[in-house]
Amino acid sequence: MSEQQLNYLKENRSKNLAALYDFLKIPSVSTDSTFKKDVRNAGQFVYDYLNEIGFSNLEMIETDGHPIIYGEYMGAGKDAPTVLLYGHYDVQPADPYEEWISEPFLPEERNGRIYARGASDDKGQVFMHLAVFEAFMKTEGKLPLNVKVCIEGEEEIGSENLHNYLNAYPEKFAADFTVISDSGMIAENQPTILYGLKGFTGIEIEVTGPSYDLHSGIYGGAVKNPAMALAQLLATMKNKDEQITVSGFYDGVEDLTKEERELIKNVQGENYLETTGAIQTISEKGYSAKEHTMARPTFEINGIYGGYQGEGTKTIIPTSATAKITCRIVPNQDPERIQDLLETHIEKYKPAGVKVKVKKEKLSAKAYKVEPTDPLIVKAAESYERAFKKEAVFVRMGGSIPVVEWLDNLYEHPVVLLGFGTPDDRLHSPNESFPLNSFDLGMETIVYYWNTFKKE
Amino acid sequence: MSEQQLNYLKENRSKNLAALYDFLKIPSVSTDSTFKKDVRNAGQFVYDYLNEIGFSNLEMIETDGHPIIYGEYMGAGKDAPTVLLYGHYDVQPADPYEEWISEPFLPEERNGRIYARGASDDKGQVFMHLAVFEAFMKTEGKLPLNVKVCIEGEEEIGSENLHNYLNAYPEKFAADFTVISDSGMIAENQPTILYGLKGFTGIEIEVTGPSYDLHSGIYGGAVKNPAMALAQLLATMKNKDEQITVSGFYDGVEDLTKEERELIKNVQGENYLETTGAIQTISEKGYSAKEHTMARPTFEINGIYGGYQGEGTKTIIPTSATAKITCRIVPNQDPERIQDLLETHIEKYKPAGVKVKVKKEKLSAKAYKVEPTDPLIVKAAESYERAFKKEAVFVRMGGSIPVVEWLDNLYEHPVVLLGFGTPDDRLHSPNESFPLNSFDLGMETIVYYWNTFKKE
Repeated sequence: MSEQQLNYLKENRSKNLAALYDFLKIPSVSTDSTFKKDVRNAGQFVYDYLNEIGFSNLEMIETDGHPIIYGEYMGAGKDAPTVLLYGHYDVQPADPYEEWISEPFLPEERNGRIYARGASDDKGQVFMHLAVFEAFMKTEGKLPLNVKVCIEGEEEIGSENLHNYLNAYPEKFAADFTVISDSGMIAENQPTILYGLKGFTGIEIEVTGPSYDLHSGIYGGAVKNPAMALAQLLATMKNKDEQITVSGFYDGVEDLTKEERELIKNVQGENYLETTGAIQTISEKGYSAKEHTMARPTFEINGIYGGYQGEGTKTIIPTSATAKITCRIVPNQDPERIQDLLETHIEKYKPAGVKVKVKKEKLSAKAYKVEPTDPLIVKAAESYERAFKKEAVFVRMGGSIPVVEWLDNLYEHPVVLLGFGTPDDRLHSPNESFPLNSFDLGMETIVYYWNTFKKE
Repeated sequence: MSEQQLNYLKENRSKNLAALYDFLKIPSVSTDSTFKKDVRNAGQFVYDYLNEIGFSNLEMIETDGHPIIYGEYMGAGKDAPTVLLYGHYDVQPADPYEEWISEPFLPEERNGRIYARGASDDKGQVFMHLAVFEAFMKTEGKLPLNVKVCIEGEEEIGSENLHNYLNAYPEKFAADFTVISDSGMIAENQPTILYGLKGFTGIEIEVTGPSYDLHSGIYGGAVKNPAMALAQLLATMKNKDEQITVSGFYDGVEDLTKEERELIKNVQGENYLETTGAIQTISEKGYSAKEHTMARPTFEINGIYGGYQGEGTKTIIPTSATAKITCRIVPNQDPERIQDLLETHIEKYKPAGVKVKVKKEKLSAKAYKVEPTDPLIVKAAESYERAFKKEAVFVRMGGSIPVVEWLDNLYEHPVVLLGFGTPDDRLHSPNESFPLNSFDLGMETIVYYWNTFKKE
């Protein structure tokens, strides 16, 4: 019974790709205020699309930052379930620009992939849903279930304004379940049900010493070097076994069960060395790289800086040095508590002679887990398998989607992660891309999935 | 017998200051190729000045980098001594520009100081010598001794080309002694004889992990974080007692004698907390801050960088992280050996899972010491005292002037460091300045000094 929609998508493939490219061309980098207007324009794209295909009660919800796009379709009637579709139209910064083979905001097709910032995360996947809605409206004039659409513009910067709005107006987005396509499959063409996601929290450590950059000859030996102080402090936070040595960090973290280890082992994961170019995998003692990335908490320095970075030499003692850190956390770890533990550790271990300021990342999220046997999850797996002609695997993953945890907490309803990215997509990196194969079979999966809600 | 010159300088003070300002206005940043032409223009300024006051055999010596300005005055005759005057017309980068109160290359007088990049290091002090030469030529038509002038444009980037030229044409600059004004006094108005300088060497450590920035959720736990690897590595190089923990680093370093400790103690040094804004002085265990800066070797991180530095958060594992390091060394430490020791240490302690590349700073220098009782030094002290009306102090200092060591090795003649900077000059930092008082009394000192070579 999905023939009509699939035919419509086939016939309109060129038109759809052209529209997606228009969407990708908008540099909607939410973290950089230079792109404020572009971010809004990307939101407007979603708004206009929903409007054109007949969604109602459209709103561009203004926030203190970038707007949230809302729209709904209630034509399936009171007895039909209502799904909340969440996604985001903002993207990560594209720098370093010089490492892109083609322009980040000028989509290009190469090797069966669409290359552009946001192709996979998350504009490409948001667009697939829009196109599938259109296919239903243009063929049957209706959808098999009621839909509330919430596409935000601040996912890459922590979704703070959506978080506030959700808490202020919970009724607005109330639904029976949520669907999100903002994740990936463990391999190209391998249907993947994500039944667990890590949570997320972060801090910034700023070490300040002298009030200006000092001449290292005149003052070397009189004051503490802030870059060295930072290095010494960071080195107290993780040991050689890649264990996080912050007191209390692992409190409540449950060890992997034999069954989970078996499940992870059987997942045909990616070849980390090949994908990343690292010379060796490095993971927590007692856990494989796959186990650590999928199910154990992490502590990563995302950026470090201080002093002279230019050409040649500048013989100074820098006035300050900074490290940006994020942790991915697992069930039973509370993000605010983790921030407190980090702060306590830093206070205890900070070297003498410098000031250390800890800035806590405002937005964070607990980890998320859903029952793999939930009928909504089972239906999703079946739809996947029908489109990709391959059995779905069930995995936990290291990524975090804070909104998943919020919706889970707020509505206590299942969140279905219907992701179509692949390990080679280079999310957040230069040369992000998305396979055309995922584009086509992903839409097919979504068509099948919505049709499972059709009343016969 | 110096009256004539001092009167001339007094009468021409405004003209001299205006000319100095013209010199300071040229952004001769040698490390940044953007300023290549400006660097040359600053050299041309020196050339033109020497030409105008009657120096001969002028040359703008071309090198692989910036030119060396040469000129001589041989009018004092064969029996008179010949001095080599060394200085540099290049300056440190001015960044961060936004921290300057007035423009770095638009000199401004405030609080009795000239504010501009290079005001103290070294254009201001080079100019004083030019003005004094002029004063002699315009009043007596001659100088009391023969002079060879060597003003280079690459001091701030290691003087590599001067080094090569010196070794290729040692005769060119041969003289009975050298005078350099590129250093400071321990306090404003405190005549200071520097009888020892530290040497200098450096390395850059680049830690590389994945071949591109990775998503920290997907890959955190599978590969080593290069920024953490760098922090862990740096932390093995210095301990909590500020001792450098690189095997062999202190080999041959002589401990301070009781007399030297006494001498350093009696030097009325600067108030480090006041000058630097640090909350506490930190120095090697067993040595005061003054002792460490003046006479003990140092290891400083001049800059550290890797990963995301922008606004907000970017959840990546950076592809690489880099630290720029320089060491100031003391007598009996060989710079190349120190580089080798650092490299050996890094090879031994580098964390698993990353590649580490050590780039050795090409140019370096041994430490320098001169006998405080040498007649040329005694004369300098007397001239200082006469101008500043205060007894001179004798100190060793933490700065390095590689060319001092080269000239010392090459010519085996005394190098007299006649510096007029002060601790508040903020060399290499935003808001560099030079006291007008040093400008006036410094020129007076130089006049007295040259006149000690006058045959009565």
